[in-house]
Amino acid sequence: MNKKKTVAVYPGSFDPPTNGHIDIISRTSNIFSEVIVAITHNYNKKHLFCLEDRIEMMKQSVSNMKNVRVQSFSGLLAYYLQKINSFYVIRGLRALSDFEYEFQMALMNRKLNSKIETIFLMPDQEYTFLSSSMVKEIAALNGDFKKFVPKPVYKKMLLKMSKKVD
Amino acid sequence: MNKKKTVAVYPGSFDPPTNGHIDIISRTSNIFSEVIVAITHNYNKKHLFCLEDRIEMMKQSVSNMKNVRVQSFSGLLAYYLQKINSFYVIRGLRALSDFEYEFQMALMNRKLNSKIETIFLMPDQEYTFLSSSMVKEIAALNGDFKKFVPKPVYKKMLLKMSKKVD
Amino acid sequence: MNKKKTVAVYPGSFDPPTNGHIDIISRTSNIFSEVIVAITHNYNKKHLFCLEDRIEMMKQSVSNMKNVRVQSFSGLLAYYLQKINSFYVIRGLRALSDFEYEFQMALMNRKLNSKIETIFLMPDQEYTFLSSSMVKEIAALNGDFKKFVPKPVYKKMLLKMSKKVD
Amino acid sequence: MNKKKTVAVYPGSFDPPTNGHIDIISRTSNIFSEVIVAITHNYNKKHLFCLEDRIEMMKQSVSNMKNVRVQSFSGLLAYYLQKINSFYVIRGLRALSDFEYEFQMALMNRKLNSKIETIFLMPDQEYTFLSSSMVKEIAALNGDFKKFVPKPVYKKMLLKMSKKVD
Amino acid sequence: MNKKKTVAVYPGSFDPPTNGHIDIISRTSNIFSEVIVAITHNYNKKHLFCLEDRIEMMKQSVSNMKNVRVQSFSGLLAYYLQKINSFYVIRGLRALSDFEYEFQMALMNRKLNSKIETIFLMPDQEYTFLSSSMVKEIAALNGDFKKFVPKPVYKKMLLKMSKKVD
Amino acid sequence: MNKKKTVAVYPGSFDPPTNGHIDIISRTSNIFSEVIVAITHNYNKKHLFCLEDRIEMMKQSVSNMKNVRVQSFSGLLAYYLQKINSFYVIRGLRALSDFEYEFQMALMNRKLNSKIETIFLMPDQEYTFLSSSMVKEIAALNGDFKKFVPKPVYKKMLLKMSKKVD
Repeated sequence: MNKKKTVAVYPGSFDPPTNGHIDIISRTSNIFSEVIVAITHNYNKKHLFCLEDRIEMMKQSVSNMKNVRVQSFSGLLAYYLQKINSFYVIRGLRALSDFEYEFQMALMNRKLNSKIETIFLMPDQEYTFLSSSMVKEIAALNGDFKKFVPKPVYKKMLLKMSKKVD
Repeated sequence: MNKKKTVAVYPGSFDPPTNGHIDIISRTSNIFSEVIVAITHNYNKKHLFCLEDRIEMMKQSVSNMKNVRVQSFSGLLAYYLQKINSFYVIRGLRALSDFEYEFQMALMNRKLNSKIETIFLMPDQEYTFLSSSMVKEIAALNGDFKKFVPKPVYKKMLLKMSKKVD
Repeated sequence: MNKKKTVAVYPGSFDPPTNGHIDIISRTSNIFSEVIVAITHNYNKKHLFCLEDRIEMMKQSVSNMKNVRVQSFSGLLAYYLQKINSFYVIRGLRALSDFEYEFQMALMNRKLNSKIETIFLMPDQEYTFLSSSMVKEIAALNGDFKKFVPKPVYKKMLLKMSKKVD
Repeated sequence: MNKKKTVAVYPGSFDPPTNGHIDIISRTSNIFSEVIVAITHNYNKKHLFCLEDRIEMMKQSVSNMKNVRVQSFSGLLAYYLQKINSFYVIRGLRALSDFEYEFQMALMNRKLNSKIETIFLMPDQEYTFLSSSMVKEIAALNGDFKKFVPKPVYKKMLLKMSKKVD
Repeated sequence: MNKKKTVAVYPGSFDPPTNGHIDIISRTSNIFSEVIVAITHNYNKKHLFCLEDRIEMMKQSVSNMKNVRVQSFSGLLAYYLQKINSFYVIRGLRALSDFEYEFQMALMNRKLNSKIETIFLMPDQEYTFLSSSMVKEIAALNGDFKKFVPKPVYKKMLLKMSKKVD
Repeated sequence: MNKKKTVAVYPGSFDPPTNGHIDIISRTSNIFSEVIVAITHNYNKKHLFCLEDRIEMMKQSVSNMKNVRVQSFSGLLAYYLQKINSFYVIRGLRALSDFEYEFQMALMNRKLNSKIETIFLMPDQEYTFLSSSMVKEIAALNGDFKKFVPKPVYKKMLLKMSKKVD
């Protein structure tokens, strides 16, 4: 009887999505009724992939998880959460430096709206080292990044890299 | 329609329960369908309060939360989780040293049973400094610990302290 | 009889000053005879506010503290301290990452001049998460930053933001 | 004209005092009008040296600093500070683990009495590794600890060690 | 032509040896000409296994590595290194708390003898969580620790545990 | 008889080399048969000194160490190591933030090629605070950086600074 409809929001720039992100989304989808992957749309920050590409890559990467939706938002996360009336924020904790920054963000968000609850999950140990920026650096140095990203991301990224050379 | 019955387990020795613990339990009870506070029964460790006292204090401290139950267990947490068939473990993250230890425990538990998912929550900033051992130290030095523990714990502890002197 | 005239220097870019900065200045002004808030003038770094604006905002924000003066300096902090013959440097410690960087700077300054003594104070717990860059980010995303900065800073910043849009 | 009489309290068990402690006391004595070294008297904790010995060793080690007094206290630091009406607590910061614990203590003390201000100083880089327990461990393993403690401590400790063997 | 005979010393209490220790020894044996596993013999510390058992378990666990020898020592590590005229100390780095402590020890050893060089290696990611005390805790709670220790250690430990019950 | 020919690779941008780098190279040259200082050639990153200058400064700074060679590489470190068939990577550990980043890089490299072994050494305590970027910052602010870099670097850098002004 005692069931709950719980919605978790997993915000990020996902430029590009990595296997570590997908691992966190999969864990979240087991715990919560619904997961909203919320991709940041920030005009001021330089991204390798435009918003449309990031949304597309993410949608393809989570297509097998029924209760996951992909959205985008601009502006403050706290306001976006207010708008969609969902206050459980998911963050992955990989390492210590993560922790510091994430803790600070979580405190700030709680300050902006006390309803916001940040929930930290731990990715598989295998992804401890993994980040979008590391994937981009490996790709830029012509390294093989196949095992670090979902297939749709790999394809898109290869295409991008080949275009750059031309 | 898409509702889930999710059970979270919050293990600890709770010797005694502090306001920080209750804060975490309260947050957990909002997110999960049911919360089991699982008090460790370890014959080898010295506790200020016996298991019965710790169970009683905890029950009184969470009596206002409908979906919270208090249990005890001995032996390995991983086996207890298996027995009750619940694998979501809640841990509070206060500070960096917490993080290191908790991360290590979470990895170990996942190694013992890959189903175990550790979920980290952040207590109110006000409780960043708070721990059972600090409360015990303040009490032992005759300091006023009233604001750090739930009322039932405060009463029980005062009683204990007065007996010690006699 | 045994009184000392002690001068503390609180260096920073203060772009802009936050309530956390003012909290540290206030604590310092209780301990030391005189506090010099030393605003860095660095041509190479990009600031949101020009030096004049930062000086003005700081002056207005500390106007109620009698023993606080606001100055600016360019070049190495160690040389500035030598010039004004004051060697007690105040730094606020909020979190771990702060600590690492601050420790490194303090060691470097002591290497440059062994007279330099760095003194660390802890802001109110409420400001643990607060930094100038976070305030700027919130403002840039049209968030409400009123409770994070002194009134004069809030006004100046609103003005700046509105101009940007035009 | 603008002079202040500022009193700093440097609490600790000092079992035994090390060169790192003396370094911090010396730096404090430069900044503050008066320094009270407050040695904890805790019946429950096991010390290598009794309170009288620790007081004596400390007095001999700081005899050259005019504005330093040595006292002892039992019970909560916060209550002792209240009693002597001095609220500036000095703590040395050597390394990261220090920082975590010290931060937690400082927050707790501020919670117990908001007047308490904890001030962190950095010992000479040479003492980064040094602690009373390390000195005791080296001595217990018959290592040469001469360069880690003040002369009076060295003598007293040698005596203690020789007695143990007999 | 340019070949070196390098001897590495890997000190520890190894109470008991874990797969993490063996992983570090194996890596060391690849880099150095010879590896001395130096087991501490400390009368003051309580061990689960006596020195003889720890030596035997370690010898059996490294029997397949030709250039590894097992020794024991009492007293200060720095003096032992002096005696055997070998100054390269190997330490495994698993996590942050390790790093702090290990760094402090390495600095202390360098202070005691500037010839001592501490060399840090990283075990397989799989062993990040593993420590002797965790293995003992799991065993004490009747958990299955088979995958965390070498076979000879597993057998010895099972025997020990069964005796305890009797 | 049991001698080994071991080759260590010390990669970095060395923009410019500092006394801390040279200290690590010197320690490495004692342990390993041969040391290759591998300077990164990365077109995308902005350097103060061009690759040729960095190679020249490094060569002059290590000219007294017989078993040290200076090379450069572009692309992924893991591929460069494969090409020269040497898999022992040396990294200096100064402080905590170092540790986090270095650990992540080491894990990533092991993922790319399991043969890669990262070996961490600790520079002299005197260099704890030192980094290329700090040297550049001091120089940019007209501070005296003579004691932080090898002589050949000091000369080259002075020249560079004087040209900038013209």
